[in-house]
Amino acid sequence: MDVDGTMTDGGVTLLSQTEEIALEIKTFDAHDGQGLALAHTAGIRTGCITGRQSSALLRRAREMNMEFIYMKQPLKIPAYEEILRKAGVPESSVAYVGDDLPDLPVMRRVGLAVAVGNAVPEVKKAAHYITDARAGRGAIRETVELILKAKGLWQEMIDQARA
Amino acid sequence: MDVDGTMTDGGVTLLSQTEEIALEIKTFDAHDGQGLALAHTAGIRTGCITGRQSSALLRRAREMNMEFIYMKQPLKIPAYEEILRKAGVPESSVAYVGDDLPDLPVMRRVGLAVAVGNAVPEVKKAAHYITDARAGRGAIRETVELILKAKGLWQEMIDQARA
Amino acid sequence: MDVDGTMTDGGVTLLSQTEEIALEIKTFDAHDGQGLALAHTAGIRTGCITGRQSSALLRRAREMNMEFIYMKQPLKIPAYEEILRKAGVPESSVAYVGDDLPDLPVMRRVGLAVAVGNAVPEVKKAAHYITDARAGRGAIRETVELILKAKGLWQEMIDQARA
Amino acid sequence: MDVDGTMTDGGVTLLSQTEEIALEIKTFDAHDGQGLALAHTAGIRTGCITGRQSSALLRRAREMNMEFIYMKQPLKIPAYEEILRKAGVPESSVAYVGDDLPDLPVMRRVGLAVAVGNAVPEVKKAAHYITDARAGRGAIRETVELILKAKGLWQEMIDQARA
Repeated sequence: MDVDGTMTDGGVTLLSQTEEIALEIKTFDAHDGQGLALAHTAGIRTGCITGRQSSALLRRAREMNMEFIYMKQPLKIPAYEEILRKAGVPESSVAYVGDDLPDLPVMRRVGLAVAVGNAVPEVKKAAHYITDARAGRGAIRETVELILKAKGLWQEMIDQARA
Repeated sequence: MDVDGTMTDGGVTLLSQTEEIALEIKTFDAHDGQGLALAHTAGIRTGCITGRQSSALLRRAREMNMEFIYMKQPLKIPAYEEILRKAGVPESSVAYVGDDLPDLPVMRRVGLAVAVGNAVPEVKKAAHYITDARAGRGAIRETVELILKAKGLWQEMIDQARA
Repeated sequence: MDVDGTMTDGGVTLLSQTEEIALEIKTFDAHDGQGLALAHTAGIRTGCITGRQSSALLRRAREMNMEFIYMKQPLKIPAYEEILRKAGVPESSVAYVGDDLPDLPVMRRVGLAVAVGNAVPEVKKAAHYITDARAGRGAIRETVELILKAKGLWQEMIDQARA
Repeated sequence: MDVDGTMTDGGVTLLSQTEEIALEIKTFDAHDGQGLALAHTAGIRTGCITGRQSSALLRRAREMNMEFIYMKQPLKIPAYEEILRKAGVPESSVAYVGDDLPDLPVMRRVGLAVAVGNAVPEVKKAAHYITDARAGRGAIRETVELILKAKGLWQEMIDQARA
């Protein structure tokens, strides 16, 4: 999945006292976090590919036990292909969630291309599924549910949820 | 009550310069705060059970004079049962407000199970009452008002409000 | 005017590494800021009364050239009466903007009581005017415009705006 | 373009422990950022004029490769005229995006005056185009798309997007 505008609402929040030292603040979504936890419980492996670098993302991704974390990727295909190799899965088994033009090359290749509810028109057109939820407000959770329900795993996941 | 997605809008906001040192920022709601203050004035005891740990929550909870604060609780039932013992009240006298799957086990036992307006469908289904307000935007206040009005205490509370 | 839920959207945002040292983050609105600047240009004097204490508010209030700043006021009437004395104006010349129960005692006395668009029902009922704008998203600007237009001063203010 | 209420949603967010040391937090939009990157790829030169000073803006503006950055400008015309001289372009070739009264003098002179979707009425009236998007949520992106589509450059830009 993408990060800014997909795992977050697209807000790029900067806090800085001097131009040299700037901190980036990122806001993730608790429902998305629960969705990722359930995905992992069900054996789904997750990762993100983003153009930015952020220790807040790194922390959240590790906290969420994401397996693949690629930052500073102006183009997403190289990271995507490395993930494919490492995971040893066919492209048809991969789902990718995105919101903007840099996500298009990956979305055109994966088995399930998902656009967040407020993705740009070009991304919505390229998607197999468009979430009702907006980015940073449950789009990842909705995607996980879609997959787990399709696999008939959702009901048994409900009672395995941990806070 | 739950915290993330119940007392807050579910945003998990991280600020970090290095991955090791991350600060969590939490946004609570002033109307909810007023609601909690009125609840305490009316003799209602309050507490929260959450999976995360956060000094921002701890500070807000103490500022609000919450009596029971349980953090780092992947499962909520043990903390819930400890609160029951300490408070010495029957389950039928307890209200619980939640938004996501980990809240279900407690919601199935309390006398008044409340889902915030943007709770997940499973939680809404398990609730006796669903607030009009969204999480972090008055859901707690609405719950307190519901209880105080049912007890016929709301009118006299209005003039006792403090800023 | 009130602060939390009136000059801000009611979010009480805390950032803390330890429970002892907590920073409060406040978000004000640029349109409201422009409104206050225009009010001052037109000779209107402004101030705020709030139950909380916050250096972020203090900074914003001074940046905005507010004349009266009262923090840590659990009851608002004493501060209100001190402002009346210092300003030397009759109550009928005072406008007050608020959103929650602690604002009611002042609202019942001023010449123009204004409730923000998302005020609680009791406050809306006590108001002479309810803004279309929500708190922290233009409610103050709308109130200033209401007053300046009633005084026939709005048109000449437009060209005096400074960024 | 303007900054607060145009590149951001107008929130003026302050974090401070003491009144003397206050940090300003600014939230920009990832879609707007992508729009600016595409504008630059297409050879459009960009800049901002704002009344405030903020190292967060400075950082974002440089990260986005904006060419003209003018802060602390209570009046916007002097900075605008300096940009015109430096850029060596006629006013008819300039587009300006704004939201509030201080933007009016520049908007009355440029070839394409754009108001963000939630601009104040006076600014909307002075605009050639009003974005569907709100400030800080894609208004800049929409303006860039409008220009690139009018120039027939949008389609070729899509595949040049970088994350």
